[in-house]
Amino acid sequence: MNMWFLGTGAGRPFKHRNVTAIALQLPEPGCNWWLFDAGEATQHQVLRTPLKLNKLEAVFITHLHGDHFYGLPGLLSSRSFDGGVTPVQLFGPPGLKSYIDTVFALSGTQLDYELNISEIAVDEGIILNDERFTVEAGLLEHRVPCFGYRITEHDQPGKLLVHKLQELGIEAGPIYGQLKQGQTVTLPDGKVVRSEDVTGTSQRGRVVTVLGDTKPCGRALKLAADADLLVHEATFAAGMEEKAHEFGHSTTAEAAETAARAKAKRLVMTHFSGRYSNEDLSRLEEEASVKFGAVTAATDLYMTEIKR
Amino acid sequence: MNMWFLGTGAGRPFKHRNVTAIALQLPEPGCNWWLFDAGEATQHQVLRTPLKLNKLEAVFITHLHGDHFYGLPGLLSSRSFDGGVTPVQLFGPPGLKSYIDTVFALSGTQLDYELNISEIAVDEGIILNDERFTVEAGLLEHRVPCFGYRITEHDQPGKLLVHKLQELGIEAGPIYGQLKQGQTVTLPDGKVVRSEDVTGTSQRGRVVTVLGDTKPCGRALKLAADADLLVHEATFAAGMEEKAHEFGHSTTAEAAETAARAKAKRLVMTHFSGRYSNEDLSRLEEEASVKFGAVTAATDLYMTEIKR
Repeated sequence: MNMWFLGTGAGRPFKHRNVTAIALQLPEPGCNWWLFDAGEATQHQVLRTPLKLNKLEAVFITHLHGDHFYGLPGLLSSRSFDGGVTPVQLFGPPGLKSYIDTVFALSGTQLDYELNISEIAVDEGIILNDERFTVEAGLLEHRVPCFGYRITEHDQPGKLLVHKLQELGIEAGPIYGQLKQGQTVTLPDGKVVRSEDVTGTSQRGRVVTVLGDTKPCGRALKLAADADLLVHEATFAAGMEEKAHEFGHSTTAEAAETAARAKAKRLVMTHFSGRYSNEDLSRLEEEASVKFGAVTAATDLYMTEIKR
Repeated sequence: MNMWFLGTGAGRPFKHRNVTAIALQLPEPGCNWWLFDAGEATQHQVLRTPLKLNKLEAVFITHLHGDHFYGLPGLLSSRSFDGGVTPVQLFGPPGLKSYIDTVFALSGTQLDYELNISEIAVDEGIILNDERFTVEAGLLEHRVPCFGYRITEHDQPGKLLVHKLQELGIEAGPIYGQLKQGQTVTLPDGKVVRSEDVTGTSQRGRVVTVLGDTKPCGRALKLAADADLLVHEATFAAGMEEKAHEFGHSTTAEAAETAARAKAKRLVMTHFSGRYSNEDLSRLEEEASVKFGAVTAATDLYMTEIKR
């Protein structure tokens, strides 16, 4: 899995930094991906990556501030131009459906695919659970209802060791599936084959946490617990906590503190105030690293692999 | 006056061409400007020009298709970030007010300036008349209500020839204003001074016509009559008239035909289908020039001076 930081800025676009959007490239095969937030011109940023709009599966909006969702109508429309016909799931705070419905009605937009909009209730937990992932939403502390998302990949059973199966004279068929799923199988000749003898090591699912705008809070800690990757906003530099909290934001030091307390493995900071140039980011990284070493300050189009 | 083609594409953004927006830089002083259409990421394109959002005076939306107005909420919000405090006039088809009201209510946007929204009735003519310009709106032929705008600069009275006034012993004062406005003045000593003797040549006001998406039609001709500059869509190449008309559009040859019949002085074509690369534009220009010589196919960020 890879994560693309399509836009890493707060409030408004600048030449060096677009407003917020993050793409999660799902494991092969399929090249499918999910999108977290869609500030204006997110579809323009997508054009600068290998991501294809027709492979977009789901969109998660953290909150209804313009820099996080004004790019949604254009992106969803262009997905039809790009031959997108498979359904898209759209999650976000209440109001999202009326936004999409109003804008598409006024512009006469008709999508070539099914758009399923789920508005998240304030007390909601798990919002998606499919054969690959569970996604949990939790309310953060911002000026308006704003969610964080914890994406948990299901553990992967170990791969079948085909050479061992061949040695045992077992041919491809339903037995392969049973063994892969951990079952013990008795062959027609009475021989008993245990799953663990013919499969590799199972793989732990990864956990990725993407938080929307927030002050430090308990919910952020909970969503980020033991995450392989935590994406946390850091609108302001360390020392500017008072201003940050006034606007419902965090500083670099606070993002690092949350990562450390949550025992996350890595932290990527984003959503920087326009006052910081890209050259300032190494300083922001440095001040965060005092509390949490494995930290990166994302720039637009920064891509990182999510390792186990 | 200069015109900036911020986005010159139809339908959706591409790497080489953004969706539609055109800026008209008004005559000095003031660096003020007007905007015609605001596709998504128009504010991003503005960042690549000398135009400042806080100097934006008026916005004219031709029609409510996404590629012409999805950039409006972000641009209007960013104008507040950029210190814009003077009022903005927003003109466009019915529905525009409900769009802005809905989006700003959902996103909790509060502007630091007055936004006056005027929805244009179908039979409307002059929509703006100030001390510098008259703007006339006319309904074109597209799939949805779509306007063209004819901007007529008022004729400028000739400049006072100060050295002549000094020779006549006339000191700066109210008499200067009377002479500038074309009046004949009798001095205290009985001497009669005619305006034309102490002023330079008056300047004819320029006419700029910006049409929204349209099939060839009588209203386009009328709005473009004798224009110093006509901006006309040319979504498709010559020969594709049938497809163009099916979607309420024009071809290059038709844009040129309209310019010729309207006796416009110059034609700039824009709103090209994504199928045309920037390299294709010289061919599009060439086929239009058969019918109208003074033609340019605009690229993104093309700037042209509007001469008298």
